[in-house]
Amino acid sequence: MEFSSRLLHQAVEEIAKLPGIGKRSALRIALHLLKQPEEQTVQLTEALNRFRKEVKYCKTCYNLSDNEICDICSDASRDHQTVCVVEDVRDVLAIENTGQFKGVYHVLGGVISPMEGIGPGDLFIAPLVERVRGSHVDELILALSPTIEGDTTGLYIYRQVQALPVKVSTIARGIAFGEEIEFADEMTLARSIQNRIPFEKSLKF
Amino acid sequence: MEFSSRLLHQAVEEIAKLPGIGKRSALRIALHLLKQPEEQTVQLTEALNRFRKEVKYCKTCYNLSDNEICDICSDASRDHQTVCVVEDVRDVLAIENTGQFKGVYHVLGGVISPMEGIGPGDLFIAPLVERVRGSHVDELILALSPTIEGDTTGLYIYRQVQALPVKVSTIARGIAFGEEIEFADEMTLARSIQNRIPFEKSLKF
Repeated sequence: MEFSSRLLHQAVEEIAKLPGIGKRSALRIALHLLKQPEEQTVQLTEALNRFRKEVKYCKTCYNLSDNEICDICSDASRDHQTVCVVEDVRDVLAIENTGQFKGVYHVLGGVISPMEGIGPGDLFIAPLVERVRGSHVDELILALSPTIEGDTTGLYIYRQVQALPVKVSTIARGIAFGEEIEFADEMTLARSIQNRIPFEKSLKF
Repeated sequence: MEFSSRLLHQAVEEIAKLPGIGKRSALRIALHLLKQPEEQTVQLTEALNRFRKEVKYCKTCYNLSDNEICDICSDASRDHQTVCVVEDVRDVLAIENTGQFKGVYHVLGGVISPMEGIGPGDLFIAPLVERVRGSHVDELILALSPTIEGDTTGLYIYRQVQALPVKVSTIARGIAFGEEIEFADEMTLARSIQNRIPFEKSLKF
């Protein structure tokens, strides 16, 4: 695309670097901002700069936080002996939205992926092991994606804490609520039969 | 979504105001920026602010420009007697990309749409009429979308310049290149038969 304005060109180039946004959408966004009051662009750019510069990782769980220790970790009413291990911030949001988990979290910042060059050292696994070693943690619940990377990461963590007095569990995998059995993949279906639960337990929520 | 950080929350809220971006994509974008060097956020926000504050509308054609007069209007090698009238900047880009048009443009900034409360006064139609009256324009090519709004706008412009010594034409409508006739809509098909052209003419490009 040959733009009539370098300013427009640069804005589009920068917007198109964001994930999931192509050149066309970037142009649409730039032209949209031009039609809105200048105030909207100011607010957008200020929010982005403040977020990028000032947001912190919680020193305990590595969740995003405005303070040294996040709201969840500093909430005394939560169960600090049960730590749910997740890949990133979005998983914390998803689990918090269920309203079913009253423990605390540990955010790894990704999963082990040799393909993308991400090793254990690039993730917050060592601080997790330190945390289990240093404070009283009864159980680690591994809530990682059921992928090769997720499984590898889970196994790695399991081996690191194996010698420590902590129970390691993993979230149940099986047929999702509302999913039809005939459309479930073989792997999931096989595992859900293997890991079947007493019927009475399935009635509780 | 309940965020662990107000900074993250505000960034997501602002990103999600952009067209075509929901809360989920906005979160993905914010987390992406956090993983990239801070420099990327700085470059993005600077480009947006500079674009929003400094970009100008060309005083002749109302295309976006870094200067008072845009590159196309100040290009002496172009045919300034032939003015192509378009809805917005994207149409200029699309037509320029064909490399087939050597005239100049007039960007209306939209089309007449009573539904959206856009009247002729909200568009750069009066400056177009002034332009035709004040300088030597042989032909106005209306390149507006084949919608009710586009047709209304075209008719309005036609009536405004009817008394002036200028030819008004409209871009050809018909079966698009590569389109199959059986799938063409009736309106397009009917018009393409009505406005048929000599076969020899269709061979030229």
